[in-house]
This record gives sequence, C-alpha cells and structure tokens, in this order.
Amino acid sequence: MKLASLKHGRDGRLIVVSRDLTRATDASTIVATLQCALDDWTRHGPALAALSARLEQGLAESFAFDQNAVAAPLPRAYQFVDGSAYVNHVELVRKARGASVPATFWTDPLVYQGLSDGFLGPRDPITMSEAWGIDFEGEVIVVVEDVPMGTTRKAALDRIRLIGLLNDISLRNLISPELAKGFGFLQSKPASALAPTLATPDEFGSAWHDGKLHLPLFATVNGATIGHPNAGKDMVFDFGTLIAHVAKTRHLCTGTIIGSGTISNRGSDGGPGQSVEDGGVGYTCLAEIRAVETIELGKPRTPFLKPGDKVRLEILDRDGKSVLGAIEQQVSQDVPN
Amino acid sequence: MKLASLKHGRDGRLIVVSRDLTRATDASTIVATLQCALDDWTRHGPALAALSARLEQGLAESFAFDQNAVAAPLPRAYQFVDGSAYVNHVELVRKARGASVPATFWTDPLVYQGLSDGFLGPRDPITMSEAWGIDFEGEVIVVVEDVPMGTTRKAALDRIRLIGLLNDISLRNLISPELAKGFGFLQSKPASALAPTLATPDEFGSAWHDGKLHLPLFATVNGATIGHPNAGKDMVFDFGTLIAHVAKTRHLCTGTIIGSGTISNRGSDGGPGQSVEDGGVGYTCLAEIRAVETIELGKPRTPFLKPGDKVRLEILDRDGKSVLGAIEQQVSQDVPN
Repeated sequence: MKLASLKHGRDGRLIVVSRDLTRATDASTIVATLQCALDDWTRHGPALAALSARLEQGLAESFAFDQNAVAAPLPRAYQFVDGSAYVNHVELVRKARGASVPATFWTDPLVYQGLSDGFLGPRDPITMSEAWGIDFEGEVIVVVEDVPMGTTRKAALDRIRLIGLLNDISLRNLISPELAKGFGFLQSKPASALAPTLATPDEFGSAWHDGKLHLPLFATVNGATIGHPNAGKDMVFDFGTLIAHVAKTRHLCTGTIIGSGTISNRGSDGGPGQSVEDGGVGYTCLAEIRAVETIELGKPRTPFLKPGDKVRLEILDRDGKSVLGAIEQQVSQDVPN
Repeated sequence: MKLASLKHGRDGRLIVVSRDLTRATDASTIVATLQCALDDWTRHGPALAALSARLEQGLAESFAFDQNAVAAPLPRAYQFVDGSAYVNHVELVRKARGASVPATFWTDPLVYQGLSDGFLGPRDPITMSEAWGIDFEGEVIVVVEDVPMGTTRKAALDRIRLIGLLNDISLRNLISPELAKGFGFLQSKPASALAPTLATPDEFGSAWHDGKLHLPLFATVNGATIGHPNAGKDMVFDFGTLIAHVAKTRHLCTGTIIGSGTISNRGSDGGPGQSVEDGGVGYTCLAEIRAVETIELGKPRTPFLKPGDKVRLEILDRDGKSVLGAIEQQVSQDVPN
C-alpha cells in the first residue's frame, strides 16, 4: 500500500493512495495520523492494507490524489538518522579537495543524527539564503517499527515498514566550517523534503531485495537531467546494516527514518562517477558535479541553486512509472534574514 | 507549575505536581500528554496553570507524588539539540590530551543534534556495556514552544516554556573513534534521562535570569560527592544564544529540547576546574576528573561507571530544596550484547 498525509495540523491527516497515484481515500476513520498508525502498527497496519485493497478494487469512496496538496507523509518524526552508504559520493567529494577516503569508510558505516521535527512537503519551497550554497541530495529512506538495541542486520530488515524518497537539502558553504568544529552537521543541514507517498516494501516487487532498492532515481534541475543512478548499485551498506549500526547502543522508536545518503554510482571505468553528457548515469546532487569539475578543470563551474531554480526528484519503476510521486521544489525568492 | 508524566503508553499521562514535590493531580482531563499540551500551549498552558494553582490551594483531588513511578516528563520529543556552553569542560578535556581550544569556541556555540525518540525516566537503569566507558553528564535543559527560523536571542528567550535537568549518558570509549569519522556523535550518545519534573521558569524565581539558571547541580556517585557547580556560572552561551544559533537555518518544533552541555565551573585560580577534595566545586561528569588526573598524574585514576554504580543528579534552590526532583540511576548488571 501507499500512504500520504493531507495538510492538516501538525501531523497531517492520513490517506491511502492507489498504486497508480491517481486516487486516494480517507484513512482517518482507521487512524488519524501516520505516526499514530506506526505507534500501533500491529493493529492499524492490516486495517490500512485492507482499505488499500478496497481502493484498488474500486470499493472505497475515493477522490483524485493531488501531489501538490499533500504534506510530507510523515510531517514530523521522532528520529531521522542519515547514512552515507554510497561511499563513491564521499570519495568523489574528498578527491576534489585532494583528500582520500580512510579504508574504514568501506567497512564502518558513516551516519549522523538529522533533523526530524519537521519535514517539508513535496512541493514546499526551499527558503534558504543563496549565500549558504544551496544543494539537494536524492536519497532513499526507510521507516522502521520499533527496533530493539543490539539488533542484527537480518532482524533489522524485518522491521522496515515503509520506503520513501527524501531531498536532503544541504547548505554546502556552511558544511566545512561546521564539520571542522567536530560535532557534525546542524546549521548546514536544514529541513529535508519527502516525496508525496511512502510505500510498503511489497509495492516495489522484486526491485526491493537484500535491503536495497534496485531502481533509478531521476534528478533534474530546471528540467535538465542531472542524473539517474540506480539506488541498488554501489550502496556499500544496505539498510539492514545501517539500522543495526545505529541500534548498537539505542532502541529505535517506531517511525524512525533511516536515510541512505546521496545516491551515487561509479563511472563506467570503475572510477568515481561520470556525468550524463559523458554517457554516465550522472548525479543526484550538485556537489558531485562540482567535484568532478574541480578534478578536471581546477575549479567548479556549475553554481549551487539560486532563487527560482526548480529541483525534481523521482524514482521510476521498471515500466518507467513513478512509484512514490515526485519531489518538485523551487528555491524561494524570499531570502531569510 | 511543575509537570510530570506517569508511565503510560509511549507518551506517558500528564500530571501536575505540587511545588514541594509531595502531591500530584491528574491533568489528563485537560490534555493527555505533555507533547499534546505543547502542541497547543496557548490553550492548554493556562488551563494547566490554573490546575496547578488549585493543587497548591488544596482544592484539587490529589495523590502522593512518587519520583520512582514516573516516566521522563517528555518521554519522547521531536528534537533534542545539545550544546556545550560551558567551554571550561571542553578546555579541560582537551588539555588532558595535549590539545587546546580554538579561539572561536568562545564566540561560536558548539552544538549537536541528539537522540530524542526516547528519554529514560529518572529511575530507569543504565543498560550499557562497561567496555564502552559509561559516564554521566549533568545538564540543564529548556523546552521551547515553536521558534521561527532566524529568531534573535531575545525573541528566543521568550519561547522557553519549561526548564529541566538531564543526564546525558556518554560512552567515552566510543566517542574518539566516532568523532574522528567527522559526522558527530551517534553510537557514543545513547538515550539520556530526564529528572522527574519540568518546571515553568517562574518556579525558579530570581534564580532564572539572562537565559541562565543560577543554581547548583549536585552530582554524586554511590553517595560520594563528585561536584556541585553553579549552572549560572561560566556558561559562555546562554539559552537564548544557543536557541538562536540552532534556529539560524531551521524552525524549531514545539517541544524541542535544548541542552546546556555538562555544567562545569572554573577553579578558584581561574584555571579549568578544581575537585571537591581540593576545595573546589567539583564536576558533573567523570571525564573531567579523569582529565585533571591525566594532567596531574599522567593518567586517569578514577574509573568510568561499572555495573551496580549509582549516579544521582539534583538541582537545589537557595533554601537547599530540590526543584525538579532527582535523577537516580543505577548501572544495570545486565550487559547488552
């Protein structure tokens, strides 16, 4: 099934969306919000699945699903831990500044505690100062039901309830000075946006296996293709491994979101990435393009996002159909103070 | 007023506690949980304050308040950002390893995104492996109502609704390797514990001013005093400054918790700290004692916490009375995998 939240109060109002993303039905007679559903998934999960089946059969009262009208499917969550599972991304960005990746980065997952108290809806503007170096990052995320501390990779995979798509908006000019302080990201990682729906793993069929989503993410800026790497390729740490890593010293509350990190594939020569113009699958963030430009030309040529720019992120299935709906965000002309 | 949560479901059941911490009254007829109260504080705040007044006057049906029976007053929150506002603490720990504090640490607040999806109750055991180097950290926290992005220090101070006490349990042996990866704390900072109650700023009278709590925090381990530094002294960044720093690129959702970092006072000679044995006010974590030992003796002598050890943290007012109740946690004999 696919779930979304209408804009309503702090936590939205839960709806079930049809597989083809055209129709939706009110789920609030079962449970008011997605967090409430996740709080008692044993009870609400099956009822929502039954409603989804009735919607597919045309037996549920429905309305047209409008991707422009929804909030983030989980408008706020108790935890978001973001990984950096495509080590290719880290390697490329480091190579541009003459640094290498420590060998442990290929064996020990890199993760950080991210902002979870408010996710932007799929059409919400990006209201950030251009001077901060606004970039996007396309990521797959999973939502878990409670995970006990010390869980194994295999047990962790069984706790995944929903899969989604996230735009990890990043303020590149704030990252270096902030990371240099030693305590990780804060100001440089503002609120992320979520795609219109979250879907249960079965919605992806055989494209979801071994804790990875084997589908391409299409990223465009102002209509121009930036890339379409496959999320199942070059993901060094699968979601089970990421979850088990995070749960080493903590229980994860139901509704915790785990992010994959920027999706990034190696180039055809096995090296770190290749642009669409050069026949490669391209990128899902501007930082990688700028890294390649720096390596090849000595300095970046592609600017970060500026007011008015439009970013679009979408996962397509093997038939080329949108699975979760698209993130389409415009950088606002309103500059914050 | 003072608020607490009985252990009940995922978010507790809200109660109002008397000023002297002896009596309590059910608040769930007004609002079920503290997060729900914070979600609509304009409506619920005054109703809870009125109930508190009736409790003080003996006009509300009440029961004995048992600090042993409560959950964390906010059992889970959407955000916890922890500062390191007592730069003395950072300076001391760094000095022990032969490093100095960059000059910017005195002007640019050091903060990190912390775990908020589950806080331990004030009597919950600490179930962590001794090999991880279990330490405690005594901190003042504030809970804010929604803070808009770009808020000023002064406006931020006006958004503080509640004040509390937190034990930021820290796994010292995991910190160095984790911070070396560059993305901040995760495995090394497990769930923190909260003191039994949260109180509105007026409960502290003149001890709360200029965004700092001017009261001592008493820390003991197995009954022996570790320290009683004053939280209002040597706090380089007040809560207004910390909140404004965090809100530079984000809105803060109501119920966001902001932590002060380990409370730490300079020694009588103006240098970085002095133990209780040496006539100083001592410390609120073991890392500082071990840092002083390393500086003086070449290596630490005081061990981290071991199974069976009991940590106690409590803020006393000018009459020596407990303001929020005590955190009393024992390290569990049950070792996680």
